[in-house]
Amino acid sequence: MTHSLDRTDPLAPLRDRFALPDGVIYLDGNSLGPLPRATPAAVADAVERQWGERLIRGWNEGWIDAPVRLGGKLAPLLGAGAHEVIVGDSTSANLFKALVAALRVSPERRTIVSEAGNFPTDLHIAEGAVACVPGARLHVVPCDEVAAALGPDTAVLLLTHVHYKTARRWNMAALTAAAHEAGALMLWDLSHSVGAVPLDLDGAGVDLAVGCGYKYLNGGPGAPAFLYVAQRWQDRLASPLSGWMGHAEPFAFADAYHPAPGMKRWLAGTPPVLGMAALEVALDLWAQTDIAAAWVKAQALWTILADAGTAAGLECVTPADPAERGSHISFRHPQAHAIVQALIARGVIGDFRAPDIARFGLTPLYLSHAEVERAGAILHEVIATEAWRAPEYQNRQAVT
Amino acid sequence: MTHSLDRTDPLAPLRDRFALPDGVIYLDGNSLGPLPRATPAAVADAVERQWGERLIRGWNEGWIDAPVRLGGKLAPLLGAGAHEVIVGDSTSANLFKALVAALRVSPERRTIVSEAGNFPTDLHIAEGAVACVPGARLHVVPCDEVAAALGPDTAVLLLTHVHYKTARRWNMAALTAAAHEAGALMLWDLSHSVGAVPLDLDGAGVDLAVGCGYKYLNGGPGAPAFLYVAQRWQDRLASPLSGWMGHAEPFAFADAYHPAPGMKRWLAGTPPVLGMAALEVALDLWAQTDIAAAWVKAQALWTILADAGTAAGLECVTPADPAERGSHISFRHPQAHAIVQALIARGVIGDFRAPDIARFGLTPLYLSHAEVERAGAILHEVIATEAWRAPEYQNRQAVT
Repeated sequence: MTHSLDRTDPLAPLRDRFALPDGVIYLDGNSLGPLPRATPAAVADAVERQWGERLIRGWNEGWIDAPVRLGGKLAPLLGAGAHEVIVGDSTSANLFKALVAALRVSPERRTIVSEAGNFPTDLHIAEGAVACVPGARLHVVPCDEVAAALGPDTAVLLLTHVHYKTARRWNMAALTAAAHEAGALMLWDLSHSVGAVPLDLDGAGVDLAVGCGYKYLNGGPGAPAFLYVAQRWQDRLASPLSGWMGHAEPFAFADAYHPAPGMKRWLAGTPPVLGMAALEVALDLWAQTDIAAAWVKAQALWTILADAGTAAGLECVTPADPAERGSHISFRHPQAHAIVQALIARGVIGDFRAPDIARFGLTPLYLSHAEVERAGAILHEVIATEAWRAPEYQNRQAVT
Repeated sequence: MTHSLDRTDPLAPLRDRFALPDGVIYLDGNSLGPLPRATPAAVADAVERQWGERLIRGWNEGWIDAPVRLGGKLAPLLGAGAHEVIVGDSTSANLFKALVAALRVSPERRTIVSEAGNFPTDLHIAEGAVACVPGARLHVVPCDEVAAALGPDTAVLLLTHVHYKTARRWNMAALTAAAHEAGALMLWDLSHSVGAVPLDLDGAGVDLAVGCGYKYLNGGPGAPAFLYVAQRWQDRLASPLSGWMGHAEPFAFADAYHPAPGMKRWLAGTPPVLGMAALEVALDLWAQTDIAAAWVKAQALWTILADAGTAAGLECVTPADPAERGSHISFRHPQAHAIVQALIARGVIGDFRAPDIARFGLTPLYLSHAEVERAGAILHEVIATEAWRAPEYQNRQAVT
């Protein structure tokens, strides 16, 4: 099967940079990006040469600078300066650091505003953060009440830019401006945005952002996450997780904590070298990729699957306007779990999000238009024949 | 060169389980343990098969359970139940979780007591923790005043079991009892103990413990760390880093946080799969190793190097009594940095700790008595000839 758009696709050569198993159409790169072909050798080098042969000397030969180096490599994808991004810890831990820091900016502002149905760890961590600042509270409202919920008590507005379930995308510039108009900071969770849609954090005047390395970035399972702090905040905010790697002089071994200048103060413990090695390969691949071109292709892929799903009678819960969505698509169906299972059995890997969402990532680096068309045809067939009714697809199992 | 003790060393066969470079005597396994020979294949499997071929399905095929599974494998080395240990995050992050939780046990108890000169991240993180609990403070005293500093306001006594610089070891049972007598919890940092000396956390009645995976455990650079919470505290303490992986039902995607039962509540973000894969190999190797026998051999290795250093006229700052020390040895010398550089140039890798400590790990899994004897001879020669005076050794550079 061929597709006319594949013949002129400027990103088509990137497909060979990924090791995808035969017989699989992988529509779950928004949950776990696939393996870049260069990663095994890079990780093996980190294990066998850097660790095995260089041993402790590895720290002076690239490991200790990895959080800053990888932050600099990621920055262009965020529309950020290289000195505004650091890589390390998990998205959850970075969220905690950023939220507690934001709550401490002004004693008059004690509220985190966020959206009901936000990705769970955002709200869970926000609960943990407000418990760490006297008088702080978390105010969770439906998405259409977010702007109105901002007020003189708001310390920070916490939103996930692209919704994990629906792919609905907030207007970053508008919401950031609304937060600032209310005197609050703006913190974006970019886990479902980075590597999917073009971002311009500096241009939008964003204060803080976090996101994960293992989805569209293709950094590997449980890859280190990232944190963005706008230049203008870097001297004024500090990390509640004040570990030695964020110290101004970590190897002076002083008793008292003095935060490092710049982004290094957001580090806590020793960097996870093997995870960093895998993520760096992925960032180097992104450095050769035009995110604007990727987003153009993602829209075409999205339309192919949207048309197929709609033709099959599925309810699409993702906004049709590309300006209002990210790079995945979600259909609602009471049997969404069984449908996803039936698709996996047919080589089309998507995922299920409780209670009734079948979710598919349209990732332009390694998917062809023909593949997505084929996935759409299989989806149509699964729905039309009610193949999902087979007993083997009715067994519920959690997939992240 | 041979050494009589090597002929009857029951641990000698373990040497072949490690990939150590030729021409190196590695006395820095207390800072970064060397590469087990089985690790490259295990990491390659995690990268190429689990991630590359199984993709998102990896989460249901071992990844999601890794923190609990590895905790169970580590538990015997700690003298803990398998259900009392979890692996994940950094030592710093785990310290933060445990300290904040301990400070929240009783509103009448608001003080963390710790030791001046403790490993920096312990004190730095304690600073961060007290800032997260109203009225809390950090009380740092010299080591001989620790017991007297405990009082009705003490929430938790935080000590590092084996000192990173001097290798001095606290009496775990006695200090834990002293903390309990004062009505406080006891939190041990075991980073320089685990895999070095036999531990019995349950037997000593310890409440909380943390430690790192990349020193004596040989889990790799920046390996995931661990957290121990005694069974009796597991329902009463909760993590301030309340991320989704610690939720009772992470895949129900609920807005409100409800901590998981048992140790899972201490998880925050997505587990670092590659780092876990490397650490698991190391823990499996430890499962075949008798820690009591390792400690017996470590003492013999220690004596060989202590005798050589003392004969060279060096001041040993590590206690001679094995009950009062861990498995490394430290010498004080105003030219300690240059001495360590001169030794590295001669194939003996130790490390420097500011301002004047030369530090050497005696790690019995992969060091022979003959090697340590040879290292002692080289140390003696470097001191006797003042080889450290060469200009190339006077260039200061940080080594972790």
